[in-house]
Amino acid sequence: MSSAISAAMVKELRTKTGAGMMDCKAALKESNGDVSAAIEVLRKKGLKDLGKRAGKVAAEGTIGSYTHAGNQVAVLVELNCETDFVARGDEFREVASQVALHVAAMNPKYVSIEDIPTELLKKEEEIIIESLAEAQRAKADKIVPGKLRKFYEECVLLEQPFVKDDSGKKTVKDLIEELSMKSGEKVTVRRFMRFEVGEGIEKADGQSFADEVAATIAG
Amino acid sequence: MSSAISAAMVKELRTKTGAGMMDCKAALKESNGDVSAAIEVLRKKGLKDLGKRAGKVAAEGTIGSYTHAGNQVAVLVELNCETDFVARGDEFREVASQVALHVAAMNPKYVSIEDIPTELLKKEEEIIIESLAEAQRAKADKIVPGKLRKFYEECVLLEQPFVKDDSGKKTVKDLIEELSMKSGEKVTVRRFMRFEVGEGIEKADGQSFADEVAATIAG
Repeated sequence: MSSAISAAMVKELRTKTGAGMMDCKAALKESNGDVSAAIEVLRKKGLKDLGKRAGKVAAEGTIGSYTHAGNQVAVLVELNCETDFVARGDEFREVASQVALHVAAMNPKYVSIEDIPTELLKKEEEIIIESLAEAQRAKADKIVPGKLRKFYEECVLLEQPFVKDDSGKKTVKDLIEELSMKSGEKVTVRRFMRFEVGEGIEKADGQSFADEVAATIAG
Repeated sequence: MSSAISAAMVKELRTKTGAGMMDCKAALKESNGDVSAAIEVLRKKGLKDLGKRAGKVAAEGTIGSYTHAGNQVAVLVELNCETDFVARGDEFREVASQVALHVAAMNPKYVSIEDIPTELLKKEEEIIIESLAEAQRAKADKIVPGKLRKFYEECVLLEQPFVKDDSGKKTVKDLIEELSMKSGEKVTVRRFMRFEVGEGIEKADGQSFADEVAATIAG
């Protein structure tokens, strides 16, 4: 079955995905004119193309920064891509800023799962297994991965739900992959640094600014 | 000999040092009305007062940040003091920003001499001694400290000549001590972080942004 692909549909798909016109036409043909399905087609194609870029060097980029009101929390994030041209784009810079804001609010400890020290990961697994009731231990293999996922969401930037996404389904990794698909380049978060005034110094009150930042952004 | 201390002289000294009126009067009396000498008197008194604050906790403060044009270099600096009141002051924040700018330009590796790893310091001393001519080795004890000073100026933030000071005599440590004397609180640079896009990643050209930043600031 072949449906007519109107210019309006192509335009809608382009606006939503940022993909090229020919790619949009092809995706709409494949989905028989269903825009939602065409988005999924483009997404799968994009991820496949990304895989091909794994060996590329992302050495250009930008430093995103965010300072919370009162200069009590500040964050730097290095977001890399392959060319200076993409690095200078407004959207690339905007995403770098948004990731910095996310780090200020969510206070992750590592960029990716691979960055968690092996010792720490082992210990976390042990704690999870020990916390299981006797009856559950037999199926620990099935329960542990789910609990580990929660642990990742607590401490790994790329696995956290992106703080500015209301659906709660989009992770920071999704945000980066979207940018990568739109720009056609390998995009990576290389590192981040979060400074909070006085953290680790014994204080009188001991209140946390992370909660305050999170509340401000949510508002 | 006692000279008359005019209100104008007190005002001049207050403007130059930010010290209290009574302290300015006393310093001018001690210097027989010589404003330059009175500044030195205040400075010595201030440093003595600072010594008394060594045991105080500087857990308040601000994060100074600086981003170089094009977002290719960015810096965060945590500057601490004792009270929230001082931390919120314009001058305190301004100094934090200026230290961040200094770090962007001068690219130090450590905050203070104490932060240099013992191994690295030992190695540096060995290199210096090895580089001495045979005749100089007998008086190595006298030559090494001077050469070490140069090493400190290369890699230790507090020992570096402050980049915005044209005289070349004022170090970052001097800048911090001045602020401490003016505010009457213990002031410390606790840490800094400098991100430069792509540093450490193998690139085609390999140009350094530190030189560019330094050139921009000097201009």
